[in-house]
Amino acid sequence: MAVRRHVGVYPGTFDPVTIGHLDIISRATRVVDHLIVAVAVNAGKGPMFSLEERVAMVEDSVRENGIGGATHIEVRAFENLLINFAVEMEASVIIRGLRAVSDFEYEFQMAGMNARLNNTVETVFLMASERSHFISSRFVKEIGRLQGDISAFVTPTVHRRLLQRFAEQG
Amino acid sequence: MAVRRHVGVYPGTFDPVTIGHLDIISRATRVVDHLIVAVAVNAGKGPMFSLEERVAMVEDSVRENGIGGATHIEVRAFENLLINFAVEMEASVIIRGLRAVSDFEYEFQMAGMNARLNNTVETVFLMASERSHFISSRFVKEIGRLQGDISAFVTPTVHRRLLQRFAEQG
Amino acid sequence: MAVRRHVGVYPGTFDPVTIGHLDIISRATRVVDHLIVAVAVNAGKGPMFSLEERVAMVEDSVRENGIGGATHIEVRAFENLLINFAVEMEASVIIRGLRAVSDFEYEFQMAGMNARLNNTVETVFLMASERSHFISSRFVKEIGRLQGDISAFVTPTVHRRLLQRFAEQG
Amino acid sequence: MAVRRHVGVYPGTFDPVTIGHLDIISRATRVVDHLIVAVAVNAGKGPMFSLEERVAMVEDSVRENGIGGATHIEVRAFENLLINFAVEMEASVIIRGLRAVSDFEYEFQMAGMNARLNNTVETVFLMASERSHFISSRFVKEIGRLQGDISAFVTPTVHRRLLQRFAEQG
Amino acid sequence: MAVRRHVGVYPGTFDPVTIGHLDIISRATRVVDHLIVAVAVNAGKGPMFSLEERVAMVEDSVRENGIGGATHIEVRAFENLLINFAVEMEASVIIRGLRAVSDFEYEFQMAGMNARLNNTVETVFLMASERSHFISSRFVKEIGRLQGDISAFVTPTVHRRLLQRFAEQG
Amino acid sequence: MAVRRHVGVYPGTFDPVTIGHLDIISRATRVVDHLIVAVAVNAGKGPMFSLEERVAMVEDSVRENGIGGATHIEVRAFENLLINFAVEMEASVIIRGLRAVSDFEYEFQMAGMNARLNNTVETVFLMASERSHFISSRFVKEIGRLQGDISAFVTPTVHRRLLQRFAEQG
Repeated sequence: MAVRRHVGVYPGTFDPVTIGHLDIISRATRVVDHLIVAVAVNAGKGPMFSLEERVAMVEDSVRENGIGGATHIEVRAFENLLINFAVEMEASVIIRGLRAVSDFEYEFQMAGMNARLNNTVETVFLMASERSHFISSRFVKEIGRLQGDISAFVTPTVHRRLLQRFAEQG
Repeated sequence: MAVRRHVGVYPGTFDPVTIGHLDIISRATRVVDHLIVAVAVNAGKGPMFSLEERVAMVEDSVRENGIGGATHIEVRAFENLLINFAVEMEASVIIRGLRAVSDFEYEFQMAGMNARLNNTVETVFLMASERSHFISSRFVKEIGRLQGDISAFVTPTVHRRLLQRFAEQG
Repeated sequence: MAVRRHVGVYPGTFDPVTIGHLDIISRATRVVDHLIVAVAVNAGKGPMFSLEERVAMVEDSVRENGIGGATHIEVRAFENLLINFAVEMEASVIIRGLRAVSDFEYEFQMAGMNARLNNTVETVFLMASERSHFISSRFVKEIGRLQGDISAFVTPTVHRRLLQRFAEQG
Repeated sequence: MAVRRHVGVYPGTFDPVTIGHLDIISRATRVVDHLIVAVAVNAGKGPMFSLEERVAMVEDSVRENGIGGATHIEVRAFENLLINFAVEMEASVIIRGLRAVSDFEYEFQMAGMNARLNNTVETVFLMASERSHFISSRFVKEIGRLQGDISAFVTPTVHRRLLQRFAEQG
Repeated sequence: MAVRRHVGVYPGTFDPVTIGHLDIISRATRVVDHLIVAVAVNAGKGPMFSLEERVAMVEDSVRENGIGGATHIEVRAFENLLINFAVEMEASVIIRGLRAVSDFEYEFQMAGMNARLNNTVETVFLMASERSHFISSRFVKEIGRLQGDISAFVTPTVHRRLLQRFAEQG
Repeated sequence: MAVRRHVGVYPGTFDPVTIGHLDIISRATRVVDHLIVAVAVNAGKGPMFSLEERVAMVEDSVRENGIGGATHIEVRAFENLLINFAVEMEASVIIRGLRAVSDFEYEFQMAGMNARLNNTVETVFLMASERSHFISSRFVKEIGRLQGDISAFVTPTVHRRLLQRFAEQG
């Protein structure tokens, strides 16, 4: 029986990485042998953190949480079309997390378009755990900005960086 | 870098297998090295086909469509709890197809319960292709029963068996 | 500019017809010149009313509510595959009412299958009005069975028949 | 400022009560001063437990989990139309738990119909906690029947009764 | 039996208050003895009305519509994290209106995050009435800007203020 | 039997028109005798193409694809409230395409508001075909901007214009 090296790409903005993302990364290690966490250069309307900061926070958080095991995890920035980046990385799957119906529909459209562009890469959806079901980068930033306690939603490293950034922004 | 043999279980009733199921099986071959199509012994309220027929139709349809490639596909009946069957098979993933929001919610509940029972097996969701988005065993049977043309929704083998069964049932 | 006679089919079980159905029939008169309300012979697991009763209640309710205007409304039983019945009736559209997301998904699958079987008939969806948004035959029967007041959900004729049927069933 | 005694009704089949239901009961104690857990006499197609058993299991589970505090909790069977039962109990609110979009739609229709029947009783929806998000009586029974470990989803009393029932049913 | 004073917070932007909001406020009076309508200082990207105007319009509309009865209604601005504001107000519940599935998911995420931050305050969801099911501040502003008749969606006071604002903005 | 000339309005931004839109236009020709494709003057935050370009691309694409048959298709810009424009055009229906649940909910709110403003015009929903289920103007622009191949999603004319625009924008 053939045994291939399975490579996966998990794309996102990670502005910043949350324990929700880390949960998906951890689950993805059961699906692939080599996981590329792909941090989008273009993070929409004004990300809170620079590309370098976002990449560093994913790397630090993965290390802090001891995620990996038999799977090699690599964090890279990407600028191209996701599907082209995945092909370039020789990935067979794109990993996406699902939390809610609205996620689902957007992801469905994306996966449908990607399948039209190149149908050798399969999009696989993993389900966020109960603990991280409600966590999104956006809510974490909103709550942190209003001085709410966000320590349960991000790693200590990211927490420290967020507090510092809020302080800088006054 | 570690290279493991990835084993997946794709469970269902397959009463009968449709090209929608075959699409998911085909996609799953990109995700795992060994795929066990698991046909549920208990198929709810009166399946149209016996367990043996349902297993045979999956086997024949996979062969007819030449699905497999580098992945070994095996068809097996299962009677236990799905999660226990998956553990017994040394599977790291359970494969599920997603078509619609209602699928999504049911699957979510199932995956959540399974994760509670055993969190070493990951449920991965694959998206049905455009061609098979609307196909379900239930609709195929309903349409066939009313003499509609179902040849586009199942393989020739299954089509023949369905016509025969409708004839027997008068 | 071509002016055709537009024919539409509005299928259902109508067990019994509610003011929700009448709302859709009324809306459909703006879309077609000839509307065939198609009452399914096969109404699932044990309908409360016979085919003749269901047809008669639709006819009476349409008359009582004075629905129609420039559109001719005809009530017919149908047994075949809906799409074949529509073609036989020379209909260009199948009319369906939408209330909720769950309706939407079922209807989507049906419309998708029908389009595969014959793509000369278009399924058009109309939105139930605010007044009838929550009404379904099933709820009306459940509430009536428990002696709730259902007079606001059905026409007087249907109300009378429902009370009589509940009395007969003890 | 007026201070009224707030009475609420939490209806269900409770076949059997799960920690998901207990979570909602516990949340409801923050909303009302007197909570009536209303066990439906008519529990659809063949409940697993008798009315008396279902009532007893709710009572035992509420006691075991020490739920209540400043709120008086009472468990009662009901046979009438829910809205009439609520009025009879002098309740101002009906409590419903929400887990998923499909719940939401059914509940919406129910609440809409109830508001039409009597708009002095308000339906309030509470959100199931993360821990109980995926638990339903139906899944618990399915998993238990297949010898899965269900001890995390029900109280010890209910667990014991379920095991006994499965043993009796062979 | 304990009888507590139930305090609730109903937060929003109210830019401007619509009859949809007033419907929820009216329903909430059945759930709590003291209702604080909490107008968010920070109303996203450029609200149409100032904080003072938004507070005044809620106060005027509540008075005009004679909402209240046994419940004391108070309108206050809030700037903090909602959950902290609720605790400060000694509220036991946060009130939210639900109209559609998309509302539902956003609200669910919010309620989940809030429960993580402080689980002594319960979020309760009330269902918008049929009359106000389709009304949102955003649509009211869009339609008004295009000279559509919005008198059925807001109180006379708010209508007058909207017309004046559109006139000022040319 | 009365035979009326059925007029429909299909509104949108069309920035630019995709084969998804053309699919709906083509389906709409079965529903009406005269179809007005209504291009919104105000296309939200900075459209990629001017009003004239958007109108021209719809006209060219309809011609290229030979859509029409017995139905007269006309492309017009509109600036007013959609419902008023429809009345002015003597339309009996507004045509909308549905792809996903999120579409559905937004459309529902819109249709509900429009019905309140004027209930002589009916909103009818048509289902996007399998081929165009995943296509949206937004995704087409995003993918094109990243040099993905978008030739399957738009007509040759639109493709040429898009490539030119991307080149101009560097």
